[in-house]
Amino acid sequence: MNNTFTQADLNISLAMPEWSIDALNELPSHLPTLEERMAAVIDFSRKNFLNNTGGPFAAGVFERDTGKVVVIGVNRVMEYGCSSAHAEIMALSMAQKMLGTYDLGADGLPAHELVVNWRPCAMCFGAVLWSGVRALTIAGEGPEVENITGFDEGPVTEDWRGELQRRGIALNEDVLRDEAIAAYEEFAASQSFVYNARLGDE
Amino acid sequence: MNNTFTQADLNISLAMPEWSIDALNELPSHLPTLEERMAAVIDFSRKNFLNNTGGPFAAGVFERDTGKVVVIGVNRVMEYGCSSAHAEIMALSMAQKMLGTYDLGADGLPAHELVVNWRPCAMCFGAVLWSGVRALTIAGEGPEVENITGFDEGPVTEDWRGELQRRGIALNEDVLRDEAIAAYEEFAASQSFVYNARLGDE
Repeated sequence: MNNTFTQADLNISLAMPEWSIDALNELPSHLPTLEERMAAVIDFSRKNFLNNTGGPFAAGVFERDTGKVVVIGVNRVMEYGCSSAHAEIMALSMAQKMLGTYDLGADGLPAHELVVNWRPCAMCFGAVLWSGVRALTIAGEGPEVENITGFDEGPVTEDWRGELQRRGIALNEDVLRDEAIAAYEEFAASQSFVYNARLGDE
Repeated sequence: MNNTFTQADLNISLAMPEWSIDALNELPSHLPTLEERMAAVIDFSRKNFLNNTGGPFAAGVFERDTGKVVVIGVNRVMEYGCSSAHAEIMALSMAQKMLGTYDLGADGLPAHELVVNWRPCAMCFGAVLWSGVRALTIAGEGPEVENITGFDEGPVTEDWRGELQRRGIALNEDVLRDEAIAAYEEFAASQSFVYNARLGDE
């Protein structure tokens, strides 16, 4: 034996913050309109940085037609030292765990929608494609978030709308755009720490 | 209270297969050449589908200059019903957990390299950018994997080499390309199940 890996090394475990349990349980069981769903997501993004539990990003999985709340995830990068612990990865993975499938669009399931407080970053855009959601609802897209917050969103393919469409994922844009931007400005004004990969100088 | 979420719902937990503990411990502690590192990664990708523990994909994090094995991850999508449980996400997240940072390029750490048995998919390409690795070593890129295995790799941005370069991530291509393709062909011949998002018909 040359190495000493144990089972404890060989796993990933990422949990939501404690405040989110009550916050989720206090939500209505259904949020019928896109605006209500986005308002909840923006509220979770604010609670996340105000509670010092992660960056100003949240993502909710809902049943598309009824608005049933499946789960809302928040960014957990700093808490876990895990650069993949973005809100979308948290939300999609928790929803899939609850439903027992990697495919939120599987036969026999109601159609699912992901609601995010900005266009997903390069990584999370891919995660949306693989998740099986039938709809993506975003507060906006464009350089505003990078400019306000300093986070690098990465290179999403130019024809991102086409990539969604070709995979049967409907896109709803500009839902509560101003409210989302206001929350990012609140984050920036709070002088919270902005992580980015490769803080080192080399 | 309108919903009944519990702490047990609000987390993600993804573990490596049992066989991988012994397989990792039997590896040399250091793999000095890129070919040795890739050979280990391809071996893990084969073990993963031969043991029925996931798709034919593996990814290793190594110290770039010494070849010290930090960890090798494998695809766990089917096992956990989690569409984000790709090999790269597993490997990068486990390495970050072991090192206690979301930034594998942080000051005070040796430079790290990710070795993958093909170019990462759209999601994982983004994950590489956020991880802090200083080098990405791949067996190849191009449509071969999609053609042989049926997996959708998604839209990686056209200037993907430039995106790596601009973030200080060196790229090594075509390391054991033929061997990697042979493993994919072995997978295809085994008639293992190929998952893809949205198996439903709607």
